[in-house]
Amino acid sequence: MTRAEADRLARVRLSLLAEPGEWRMTSLVARLGPQQVLQQLQAELDLDGLTRDLHSRDDTDPVRALEQAERLGIRFVVPGDAEWPTMLDGLAHTEPLQGRGGVPLGLWVRGPLPLNELTGAVAIVGSRMATTYGTEHAGRIAATVARSGVPVVSGGAFGIDHAAHRGASAAGGVTVAVLACGVDRHYPVAHRAMLEHLAATSAVVSETPPGGSPMQVRFLARNRLIAGLSAGSVIAEAALRSGALNTANWTDRLGRVLMGLPGPVDSATSEGVHDLIRNGGAALVANGEHVLELIGASGTHLVQPSRGPDRDRDHLTLRQRQVMDAVPVSRPAGADSIARTAGLAPAEVRGILDDLQGHGLVRVEDGGWRLARDGDADIRTRVPPTIAG
Amino acid sequence: MTRAEADRLARVRLSLLAEPGEWRMTSLVARLGPQQVLQQLQAELDLDGLTRDLHSRDDTDPVRALEQAERLGIRFVVPGDAEWPTMLDGLAHTEPLQGRGGVPLGLWVRGPLPLNELTGAVAIVGSRMATTYGTEHAGRIAATVARSGVPVVSGGAFGIDHAAHRGASAAGGVTVAVLACGVDRHYPVAHRAMLEHLAATSAVVSETPPGGSPMQVRFLARNRLIAGLSAGSVIAEAALRSGALNTANWTDRLGRVLMGLPGPVDSATSEGVHDLIRNGGAALVANGEHVLELIGASGTHLVQPSRGPDRDRDHLTLRQRQVMDAVPVSRPAGADSIARTAGLAPAEVRGILDDLQGHGLVRVEDGGWRLARDGDADIRTRVPPTIAG
Repeated sequence: MTRAEADRLARVRLSLLAEPGEWRMTSLVARLGPQQVLQQLQAELDLDGLTRDLHSRDDTDPVRALEQAERLGIRFVVPGDAEWPTMLDGLAHTEPLQGRGGVPLGLWVRGPLPLNELTGAVAIVGSRMATTYGTEHAGRIAATVARSGVPVVSGGAFGIDHAAHRGASAAGGVTVAVLACGVDRHYPVAHRAMLEHLAATSAVVSETPPGGSPMQVRFLARNRLIAGLSAGSVIAEAALRSGALNTANWTDRLGRVLMGLPGPVDSATSEGVHDLIRNGGAALVANGEHVLELIGASGTHLVQPSRGPDRDRDHLTLRQRQVMDAVPVSRPAGADSIARTAGLAPAEVRGILDDLQGHGLVRVEDGGWRLARDGDADIRTRVPPTIAG
Repeated sequence: MTRAEADRLARVRLSLLAEPGEWRMTSLVARLGPQQVLQQLQAELDLDGLTRDLHSRDDTDPVRALEQAERLGIRFVVPGDAEWPTMLDGLAHTEPLQGRGGVPLGLWVRGPLPLNELTGAVAIVGSRMATTYGTEHAGRIAATVARSGVPVVSGGAFGIDHAAHRGASAAGGVTVAVLACGVDRHYPVAHRAMLEHLAATSAVVSETPPGGSPMQVRFLARNRLIAGLSAGSVIAEAALRSGALNTANWTDRLGRVLMGLPGPVDSATSEGVHDLIRNGGAALVANGEHVLELIGASGTHLVQPSRGPDRDRDHLTLRQRQVMDAVPVSRPAGADSIARTAGLAPAEVRGILDDLQGHGLVRVEDGGWRLARDGDADIRTRVPPTIAG
């Protein structure tokens, strides 16, 4: 058995023994390596109080565990494997949160996608109790991101997670679910078909061994993986105490791009997102293009500054605009009257009016001048005929 | 006649001659003083091409103009007057925009409020074609701001402007309209009652002399006054080409606090605001408290960080939380099973379960343990009974 093989089996054993993402364990393994940690545990040395906890767990044969997993189509991916997603290595240098942290001992994976292809992925997460607004826009963002070739990462929950996977799948893109339970479990049960679809087409991933149940602490550990696998995270909807804010926290800790979709300020599920934009360093994103721009996915994704449609008056000189602004929208006025309003000399105004007529912007009617078209003026600064005339 | 009186009359003359906020004029007056500018104009010296324009305007007696204004209840306030709003002096050092800029020659004012009482005001502006969402929240923000003793400044238009004045008035606060037309005009006509109310209770202000019409260039000049009179501006709703973005631009140029109310990303009237938050340096505000916090109106307005309600589990130790997270929501489980799930020693888990029971967080049922209450778990990380049990 090579050292790598022995390491892998030690990691399987430790994965079966320890809680996912328990920082005491991941940091010990980072320091000592998996085999030495396992040996010391077996020698019942007290390592930071770990052995006491591990006593209550069953001892399992790692080779058998891997075989059982393989029969279910599940592989165990460890650091050093060709498909290891090196994005996760950033967790080695990140402070723990609620006792969870560090690089996972390994990942249990179901699905054909090699995990290293997740590089540059975007996490799209948010409230389970999402609104129609939230799911609609999370789905649209996921579709835009996936269509551009950037993988999407999310959980497996109702609401935003589901919308993200659905949007990315519909766009023919790659989307991966990271679960708090074993990858052979269907949680929630209603998402059986979706999880099977992801397992058949891309990947379902978990730090929890097959068969493991979802528990609150495992969601906390899982959130760090969603953030860790991604170049940036979009929080689509989140109430003030939503678990999605935990993912936001990990994203921030990892120095990845944190983004938030705004919504109506009277929507409870947008409150947490607005708070992140106000105080949590999240950038506001209104669509998938904004997301691609922020993660710098590719030069082709750079978004043009948003602006309204070009209008003829944008191309006018200041003088021409001054005159045009003084031309009535309806009820024609004489050139002298327009000159008075514009504060310009009548002779100059007549020349400019002729130019503007040449551009089709003003026209002569009943011996006076008026604008050629209505509705060309700015929403706010438009002056109705009754006043301007 | 004192020098101050002569200056005032010169400013009246110039105000009647020049377009409001025309930068060539305001900067000349700042450099040479109003009397010298007027003398040179009268001597037909060509000052930056100004005289050619001014030729087309009527010459008017300033004393008569002031008397006429007074009969309409209108006064002309100039720099140096006790009630001059010195906030506007910031415009002296601000680059012009679209040919408009500088400190106004004077302000035509109708209403009992001395303008110097506007210090620290908040501008609330936005689209004329506002949505119900926009007007509702603009009104609420105005009410909160006004109730705290901070004056509100806005235009006189439909939509956000109207909602801001109404919200501030309903809260019994001070709210001032800055118009593009003369303060004796009712524009739009539908706002006659509102403008009369403001003139009777606080103030209606304009750089345009009485009788003057609203024109597009005057709205641009007016927007700089709204920004200039205020410690900060809230853009409540704005399409991508909205005139409210012009006010935002002035606010930014003046170094005042620029704020934006977010909204649904599919609302055209929130697009301009989102753009300001993304690229224009605007801070996201969801309510009036956020506004007061940002303009630092007073220590009493400092807002507590928003968070959800406290929950019992917030006060638990990490160990207690680990155990509690492993206790089924329904379907009771034995202490040994909970210990296995939690990854802790059974003896320790039994002691912790007793503690938790003492705090009313778990209870014994059918010889096993379960959580005492449903619905206590986090929206996202809550594990339904069927899985956790």
